[in-house]
Amino acid sequence: MEHFLKKAKASASELLRIDGAKKKSVLLQIADDIEKNSNKILAANEKDMALAREMNLSSALIDRLFLDEKRVRSMAESVREIAMLKDPVGRVLDGWVLDNGLRIEKVSIPIGVIGIIYESRPNVTSDAAALCFKSGNVSILKGGKEAKNSNEAIAETIQAVLEKNDLPKELVSLLPDYSREGVEKLIKMDKYVDLIIPRGGEGLIRYVSENATVPVVKHDKGLCHTYIDKDADFDKAVAIAVNAKVQRPGVCNAMETLLVDYAIKDEILLKLYEAFKPHMTTLKGCALTKEVLPDIETASEEDFHTEYLENILSIKVVDGVEEAIEHIRKYGSGHSEAIVTENYTTAEKFMNEVDAACVYVNASTRFTDGGVFGFGAEVGISTNKLHARGPMGINDLTTYKYKIYGEGQIRQ
Amino acid sequence: MEHFLKKAKASASELLRIDGAKKKSVLLQIADDIEKNSNKILAANEKDMALAREMNLSSALIDRLFLDEKRVRSMAESVREIAMLKDPVGRVLDGWVLDNGLRIEKVSIPIGVIGIIYESRPNVTSDAAALCFKSGNVSILKGGKEAKNSNEAIAETIQAVLEKNDLPKELVSLLPDYSREGVEKLIKMDKYVDLIIPRGGEGLIRYVSENATVPVVKHDKGLCHTYIDKDADFDKAVAIAVNAKVQRPGVCNAMETLLVDYAIKDEILLKLYEAFKPHMTTLKGCALTKEVLPDIETASEEDFHTEYLENILSIKVVDGVEEAIEHIRKYGSGHSEAIVTENYTTAEKFMNEVDAACVYVNASTRFTDGGVFGFGAEVGISTNKLHARGPMGINDLTTYKYKIYGEGQIRQ
Repeated sequence: MEHFLKKAKASASELLRIDGAKKKSVLLQIADDIEKNSNKILAANEKDMALAREMNLSSALIDRLFLDEKRVRSMAESVREIAMLKDPVGRVLDGWVLDNGLRIEKVSIPIGVIGIIYESRPNVTSDAAALCFKSGNVSILKGGKEAKNSNEAIAETIQAVLEKNDLPKELVSLLPDYSREGVEKLIKMDKYVDLIIPRGGEGLIRYVSENATVPVVKHDKGLCHTYIDKDADFDKAVAIAVNAKVQRPGVCNAMETLLVDYAIKDEILLKLYEAFKPHMTTLKGCALTKEVLPDIETASEEDFHTEYLENILSIKVVDGVEEAIEHIRKYGSGHSEAIVTENYTTAEKFMNEVDAACVYVNASTRFTDGGVFGFGAEVGISTNKLHARGPMGINDLTTYKYKIYGEGQIRQ
Repeated sequence: MEHFLKKAKASASELLRIDGAKKKSVLLQIADDIEKNSNKILAANEKDMALAREMNLSSALIDRLFLDEKRVRSMAESVREIAMLKDPVGRVLDGWVLDNGLRIEKVSIPIGVIGIIYESRPNVTSDAAALCFKSGNVSILKGGKEAKNSNEAIAETIQAVLEKNDLPKELVSLLPDYSREGVEKLIKMDKYVDLIIPRGGEGLIRYVSENATVPVVKHDKGLCHTYIDKDADFDKAVAIAVNAKVQRPGVCNAMETLLVDYAIKDEILLKLYEAFKPHMTTLKGCALTKEVLPDIETASEEDFHTEYLENILSIKVVDGVEEAIEHIRKYGSGHSEAIVTENYTTAEKFMNEVDAACVYVNASTRFTDGGVFGFGAEVGISTNKLHARGPMGINDLTTYKYKIYGEGQIRQ
C-alpha cells in the first residue's frame, strides 16, 4: 500500500506540467473510450450483478450497481461536461503589492492526492476521476466491493487513455485493497494523501472522520427545516413546503421537519394538510399540531432527530422565529434551512443566526446542489465547516499558494 | 469537560448578535484593563517564574514565560491593534443570480468554537482571545502548565470585561484541565469544537494531528530553500541568501538549505563564503560545494532534512532548476521557497512547479509573515494545504455560508 501511494504522490508533479488543452483532450478521449468499451464495461458489470444477486443484496443496491448502454453513455457524457469546465487551476484569487514593491498573487493550485471512498454506483468512478484530473489532482478511488469488476473495467479504460497520452497511469488508480483495512491504511497515510472525501452511509463517514489523519471533507446527513413565519405569504409557504418535502424525498436537501409559527397555526396547518394530501405524505405532528390536525401521527423527540429520506414529515409549532432558530440549532445538521416570511427583519434575523451551509428565505431547500448553483459538476455537498462548505464544485478541489515577485527585496 | 465545552458552544450564538462596534469597544476595554491590572498579572507571573526557576526550566523557556511592565503594555497594544482591524465577519465573498431569479450570496461567518493549544508565552492568551473574539469565535485556550498563573490572571481580566458588557464569560475560557488528558479530550470533542490550532513543538503538533477528530490547522516546521540559478543577478543572490539565513535564524521562514546551480558554482560559492563570513554562519556543504570551499563542514543527508533554527546553513550544488525543484520536493516542508534568477522561463517553472505555501522569485523567504503580508495580525503560518495555507490572518478564522434570497421559487 505504501509503495502504491508513493507512486501516486510522485505522479502528482506530472499534472502540474500539462496545460488545460491537454487535460481537456485527455478527458474527451476518456469519454469516447468509455463509450467504445461499453461492451467490456457491461460484461464486467454483469459479473458484479450476478454476484450481487447470488448474495441477495437489496434491490435498491442492485439498482445502484446496474449499468446498461444508456447509463454508460451518461457516464461518458458527464466526463465530457467535466472536460469542458473552466480550468479550476491558476485562478488568481487575490493580489496586491506591498510598500516595498513585492507583488503578491494568491493563485489556485491542485490539492495533490485525493482519496475518494464511495459505495456501489460505478459512475462515481469515472466522475471522480474526471473531476480530480481536471483539477490537477491524483485520484485514489475506493468503490464498493460489490462493484469491483465494473470499477476495474472503467479504471482500465481511463488508464489506457492516460498511457496513450504519455501520462503515468497512477494519476487515476483504484485502491488495490478492498478490505476495511485498506480504507484504514489509506486514511492514515497523510504523508502521501492530501484529502479524503467519503461519500456514503453515516457509518462509513463517522468511521473515516474518527480515524483519519488525512483531512476529510464529509458529505453526510441533511436534516433540513422550513420555518413558516406568521408574516409568511401563505401561498408561497405551502408551495415551498410541499416542494421541499415531496419533489424528491430521498435526498439530503429535502425537508424533514416543518416549523410553524404559533400565531398562524390554525389556518396554515389546515392548508398544509390539504396540500400534502394528494402526495400521500405521512405527517407527524407535535401536540400543538395535533390540536389542529387530530388524525395525523404523533411526532416523538426521535422524529425531530430523524433524516427520513422518505415521504414523511415532522411538524412542530414554535413560538416565533426565536424558537425556530433554537429548534434548528438543536436538531439541524447545518445543511440547508429555510424561512418563509415577508418580514424583512425576521428574514434577516433567521439568515444571520441560523448556522448552516445554506440558508434560504422564501425558497425551497431543494436548490442546494452544485449543478443548480452553477458549479457545473457536483463533487458533493460538504457538511464540513472548513475548506469547502455546502455545494462543492470543482474549484473546491483546489487549494492555493502565494506567489511573490521581487526585484531583490530583503527583510529589514 | 463535556459540560464546560457545551456551555462554550452554547455561548457562540451570542457572538452572532453583537455588532462590530460592540466587538471593537469590548476589545478596547480589555486592552485598557490589561494595563490597569498590570500589577495583578505581574504578581501571577512572578509565581510562575518562581516555580519555573525551582523546576530548573531552561533559560529560553523562562525568557518566553517572563512578563514585565513593557511586555504587559505590548500585550495591551496588540489587543488594541486587533480591535481596530476590519471586521472579518460578513464579507461578501461571492454572489450571483440564478436564471430562476434566486439570488445567492457567499458570506463570511465565524467558525464557531476554536481551541488553541500553545506553550509558555502568556501573551498568546490575550492575542488568541482577541483574534477569536474579533472574528466572532468562542476561544478555548490551553496554554503551557508553567504559565498557569499568568494565563489565569489574563483570562480573568478578559472575562471580567465580558461580564461587565453583559456577555457570557464562556466566550473566552481557559481549558480547565491542564494535563495531557485534557488536550486529548479537547481534540476529540468535534461535537462542540470546530477547529483546533496547535502552536508549539513538533511533538505536540504531531500528537494533535494524529489524535484529533476536530479539524486541525497546523503551524509547524519550515525547512525553506533558496535556489540560485545560473541566470541570477549575483548581487541580488548574495544579499537574498544572507538575509534569508542570518536576519533572524530562529524562525520558520529563515532559509535552512541553499541550492546553487552547477554552472555558476565556482564564482557564486566564493562570493557567498565572503558574504557569510562576517555573520559567523556555520556553512556545511555537499561534495561539490566542498571542491570550491574545502574548509567548510560536510553536509550529510540528515542536514538536508534539518530545520536548524540556528545560524547554520547547508549548501548543495544542483544541476539546474529541475534538480532544485526535485530537491525541494524531497526535503522541503511546503513553507517558503525562493529562486533567484533573471530568466523569465526558469522563474515561471520554479513558481509553478514548487509546491509550497509561498514561492518567491528574487526575494528573501523572510517575508512570509501575516504582518508583512498586510493581514494586520498574525494567527500564525499554516502548513496545512486545506482551509488556510501560509500566513494566516484574521479572515482565516472565518468560514462561510450561502444566503439564498427567493420570492417563492420551488424546484421543478
